[in-house]
Amino acid sequence: MLKNQAALSEVLKKEGVVAIGTEGKQGTHLVATWNSFLQVIDQQTLAIPAGGYLLTQENVEAGSRVQLIIGSKEVAGKSGPGTGFRITAEASFREEGAAYQVIKEKFPWARAAFLLEIKDVECLL
Amino acid sequence: MLKNQAALSEVLKKEGVVAIGTEGKQGTHLVATWNSFLQVIDQQTLAIPAGGYLLTQENVEAGSRVQLIIGSKEVAGKSGPGTGFRITAEASFREEGAAYQVIKEKFPWARAAFLLEIKDVECLL
Repeated sequence: MLKNQAALSEVLKKEGVVAIGTEGKQGTHLVATWNSFLQVIDQQTLAIPAGGYLLTQENVEAGSRVQLIIGSKEVAGKSGPGTGFRITAEASFREEGAAYQVIKEKFPWARAAFLLEIKDVECLL
Repeated sequence: MLKNQAALSEVLKKEGVVAIGTEGKQGTHLVATWNSFLQVIDQQTLAIPAGGYLLTQENVEAGSRVQLIIGSKEVAGKSGPGTGFRITAEASFREEGAAYQVIKEKFPWARAAFLLEIKDVECLL
């Protein structure tokens, strides 16, 4: 999934806000992290350190799909400066295993790895 | 709403990605704009130029609430560099009126003003 998206690798090197959306009883719910916190586990899998994200976890465990928005004005897009991606994923929260170890080593404050199995990557711009 | 959030005004001066979430039949749906595209109409109201956003409009018109994530690593937060906000809003798409004129003047390509009546502003960091 990720290997076809060279610009996404460039975006991950720039700092910025990543938004993560789920839905639940309250409606749509957004949380955030930084580009630099996203860890590429493999070509299908991203991991994010989870500090809070309690309602996000509740939504995910109730079956919500997850979408992420990530972009940068500093990376060239289809029509000039700036590109952005929408990633659709199935997610889970892991408190053990290899991805959790990667997260815990870099972010000792993380209570879990928020693991994203990528189902789709759309270049929006 | 906005006047109690001095750091949010600072964030709006920095460039970055704003994510906008709604939910509909397909589940959660995220689209994006740039910080610099957000127009403060008054202390309760933001407007964003709508180019596409067709599914977002469909979700909004079916009753979905809207959440935005906006932040910047370059603005100080509660505990160091970087702050971010989650805005909850009721939204509508306007193809006429004062907000539409503001949008149309700055973004001639806009098909509508995506108008956000702010219900809540949470500082996340």
